[in-house]
Amino acid sequence: MSDQRIAPVPAHQPPYYAVVFTSVRTEGDGDGGGGDSYADTAERLGELVKDIPGFLGEDSARTPGGLAVTVAYFRDLAGIEHWRTHAEHRAAKEYGRAHWYERYSLHIARVEHSHGFERAVSAPSPE
Amino acid sequence: MSDQRIAPVPAHQPPYYAVVFTSVRTEGDGDGGGGDSYADTAERLGELVKDIPGFLGEDSARTPGGLAVTVAYFRDLAGIEHWRTHAEHRAAKEYGRAHWYERYSLHIARVEHSHGFERAVSAPSPE
Repeated sequence: MSDQRIAPVPAHQPPYYAVVFTSVRTEGDGDGGGGDSYADTAERLGELVKDIPGFLGEDSARTPGGLAVTVAYFRDLAGIEHWRTHAEHRAAKEYGRAHWYERYSLHIARVEHSHGFERAVSAPSPE
Repeated sequence: MSDQRIAPVPAHQPPYYAVVFTSVRTEGDGDGGGGDSYADTAERLGELVKDIPGFLGEDSARTPGGLAVTVAYFRDLAGIEHWRTHAEHRAAKEYGRAHWYERYSLHIARVEHSHGFERAVSAPSPE
């Protein structure tokens, strides 16, 4: 890990949108290792989405051997539609349904309330 | 892992609500080990929330050493408010801000669209 601190996407001023993607990968599909190109594709898509107008950031977590949850935030539905129909993203989703995912759920939701917390007392970074 | 398959909360008929809680734990705070009671509390809260009217389920993932994302789904805001003000949940949140969390973001969002995917061809369980 670099000296960059891990931080979730902060609370924005509502309204904005959250796209929650919760997935279970196929058995035998490693954590980015192995013959498939999951990790490369995920990294590539993570760069591409930053160019979508209204993209606010995304958070991902994956329990080894368990669920993965990714939440992407957009200012409006137009940004989500832009991303949904992005050619490279569409191709990756199609490939993912064929190879990577055992099952998933997708929820598109309008954020109505949000807040953040950060510890008031934080030791300076050792670097 | 038991023979119970890992599955995300399925897509429900909108509208319903998603509460997205994304957190970074304090340094030195283990993954449920150590002296603190994080894992016990999380398990206890995971049971209590099931009794909240309108609770639809929750998904959690945590990247070791990284972000944790929990998404809880409720039929309506009344259920969220019920859970938000639940005495034991409130006490745990207060303790968490004092001990467990470096920072977090919370987003309460109204789900407007959802869908699910499940592989059509799935080998039967070996058991």
